[in-house]
Amino acid sequence: MSTHPTRDTAAAPDGAGSTLIANISSLVTNDHETVAAAEHGPLGVVRNAAVVVEGDRVAWVGTESEAPATDSRVDAGGRAMLPGFVDSHSHLLFGGDRTEEFAARMSGRPYTAGGIRTTVEATRAADDAELAANLARHVREALRQGTTTLETKSGYGLTVEDEVRALRIAADQVDETTYLGAHVVPPEYASDPDGYVDLVTGPMLDACARHARWVDVFCERGAFDGDQARAVLAAGVARGLVPRVHAGQLGPGPGVRLAVEFDAASADHCTHLSDEDVDALAGSRTVATLLPGCEFSTRSPYPDARRLLDAKVTVALSTDCNPGSSYTSSMPFCVAVAVREMGMTPDEAVWAATAGGAAALRRIDIGRVTPGARADLVLLDAPSHVHLAYRPGVPLVAAVWQRGERVL
Amino acid sequence: MSTHPTRDTAAAPDGAGSTLIANISSLVTNDHETVAAAEHGPLGVVRNAAVVVEGDRVAWVGTESEAPATDSRVDAGGRAMLPGFVDSHSHLLFGGDRTEEFAARMSGRPYTAGGIRTTVEATRAADDAELAANLARHVREALRQGTTTLETKSGYGLTVEDEVRALRIAADQVDETTYLGAHVVPPEYASDPDGYVDLVTGPMLDACARHARWVDVFCERGAFDGDQARAVLAAGVARGLVPRVHAGQLGPGPGVRLAVEFDAASADHCTHLSDEDVDALAGSRTVATLLPGCEFSTRSPYPDARRLLDAKVTVALSTDCNPGSSYTSSMPFCVAVAVREMGMTPDEAVWAATAGGAAALRRIDIGRVTPGARADLVLLDAPSHVHLAYRPGVPLVAAVWQRGERVL
Ligand SMILES: [Zn+2]
Ligand SMILES: [Zn+2]
Repeated sequence: MSTHPTRDTAAAPDGAGSTLIANISSLVTNDHETVAAAEHGPLGVVRNAAVVVEGDRVAWVGTESEAPATDSRVDAGGRAMLPGFVDSHSHLLFGGDRTEEFAARMSGRPYTAGGIRTTVEATRAADDAELAANLARHVREALRQGTTTLETKSGYGLTVEDEVRALRIAADQVDETTYLGAHVVPPEYASDPDGYVDLVTGPMLDACARHARWVDVFCERGAFDGDQARAVLAAGVARGLVPRVHAGQLGPGPGVRLAVEFDAASADHCTHLSDEDVDALAGSRTVATLLPGCEFSTRSPYPDARRLLDAKVTVALSTDCNPGSSYTSSMPFCVAVAVREMGMTPDEAVWAATAGGAAALRRIDIGRVTPGARADLVLLDAPSHVHLAYRPGVPLVAAVWQRGERVL
Repeated sequence: MSTHPTRDTAAAPDGAGSTLIANISSLVTNDHETVAAAEHGPLGVVRNAAVVVEGDRVAWVGTESEAPATDSRVDAGGRAMLPGFVDSHSHLLFGGDRTEEFAARMSGRPYTAGGIRTTVEATRAADDAELAANLARHVREALRQGTTTLETKSGYGLTVEDEVRALRIAADQVDETTYLGAHVVPPEYASDPDGYVDLVTGPMLDACARHARWVDVFCERGAFDGDQARAVLAAGVARGLVPRVHAGQLGPGPGVRLAVEFDAASADHCTHLSDEDVDALAGSRTVATLLPGCEFSTRSPYPDARRLLDAKVTVALSTDCNPGSSYTSSMPFCVAVAVREMGMTPDEAVWAATAGGAAALRRIDIGRVTPGARADLVLLDAPSHVHLAYRPGVPLVAAVWQRGERVL
């Protein structure tokens, strides 16, 4: 098994003409309805498959023996392919890191100086170039692990200027940007949290709206309560942003039902849910995005994916990559932990990390390998996508195509 | 932060003359006694460190400002370095894989045909070249994740010929080989387990002893009982092999105390321990080797590392890499899970994965970065070894030296 796929013909450069990626032992399409050769089931697996890429799009998917003629051909070496991971929840605009806080927490030592506010201080102190370079490093790191679409948020600036520059830098590098001025109340507003909500829903929103697609709020005891969260979401919607909500991470609360009420694309964390929350999600098109890296890194109980799946809620998996509570950028790691800890089958976890993430971003052009979709593809050094859970921690990503271009 | 360290002078090729590896932000030596610049504590960390490599050995370790002149210099880019991981427990001589069995287990589907015997069948059916290529692939995969010393075992052949060839192939590729004829009673001896023990302690041992350093036995209900395990270890010792024991994986049993009685280098698994077992280990030089990948992949309760550490037992971490119960080759993953689940601090887990593994193999030339030690070194794309736990699943290994040679 060679590490790199080999190009048999050098006629056309990447991105020009049509390319056949052949000799794929097992291909996850996430689309058994359109792809005729796909097995029944959400993953729509095609055996002995091939994919034709034209420009930045998938042009054809099927059994290799039926593949059309193309300008060039790449041999996948009899390995498994799946759509690029869609990581729909990360916080990558930050300065500093929190190694000492993590080490203290995991060693049972007190560490009072930690928390989000440490990162806010370091982020405000960082210059634009530092923030941009840090983001680029994490985007590249995620890409090496198969993540071809990344959402990221502001939320460590918490002044008008610092939130705007975070989103400006983010929009330069990633597809999906989220305004999270309502991440936490900054120290300077400690005695006037409603004053901070006025800032977030007023001048800060005015300045940020053009740089973001989404508005988000951390609706949790110690952050923003139901009324405050409602004000943030309503103001964002009025400015044309689409809501998503941090809800139910540390305890039950109004966040999930608020997300559903606002037709949010996603309610994220969903670790603590009442039966009413589950019913609300099940009756909505709001995705439950689970973030197992967070529970892993804080030694907290995991969300119950099985309960949500059995209630027919759409589930996504994401990293929540951030320097405080979940400093992983690895979607394969999240898949493995979701299977170990959250009652997901390997198939369900792989779907949630690809098509689920796309649903949480209301995208249909990513998260599946089907004609017309963006050619975002991951080749594994393994015969099956199940190896993402079967071989935890092992870097299995052998090659990545993003928008039709071979980037790894 | 560049991905690859840069060589400043091209005067001497790798392995010739002396090379200074400089600009190491934080170096784990595991030797604060010999290395004068090291902080107190088991990890013996040196800040702003440098290492001089001569041939296959470490020649000097200290603060960069005090480094001696060398023939060439490599810039570590202000990143963290530690000794190569010592993975003291794996089962890499096998044919086939058990993806379907894993998927069924994790999906709650019955799968009666699985188990070790599936792998025994596939291993017997594989030819020598297949077994050798499969081992080489896993050794290379482990190396890419920073494992510079690997122990591996026979135990899927279970005939004289198949056990011998497994060890012969293993000895060609890895430093440490273990005779595990007593892995499980093969089907053809199902009605005569003592007859199989006679084979393992007789003709099979005669044929295998020259290809192995260690003798091992799976002392567990359903495998070999205390009397059988005693016979296997005694016979191995009589042939000059050094004992190690699979003990306490599925339930309490006599294995741990037997290991101590035989002065075994290691008792492996130690998931189920009585107080007497812990006392026995504490009063011995037998290392407790914990294998969290196994509990991760079988959804079993984890061993309690804290209890062992508090009792002053020497603890090692290892992958148990095998296609059935723990198909990870990732020592960084084991470190992260040990911190999350087993009560280890990041420092303790990193020690256990390096110096601990060396202790479990009775080696002092590996598992530490100190003058005279083998130059087995791992450079992380991170400022601290803590990131191995802080950034779970992220492939952080940026460069690897093995016996003084840059191999990654
Ligand atoms: Zn978040
Ligand atoms: Zn084992």
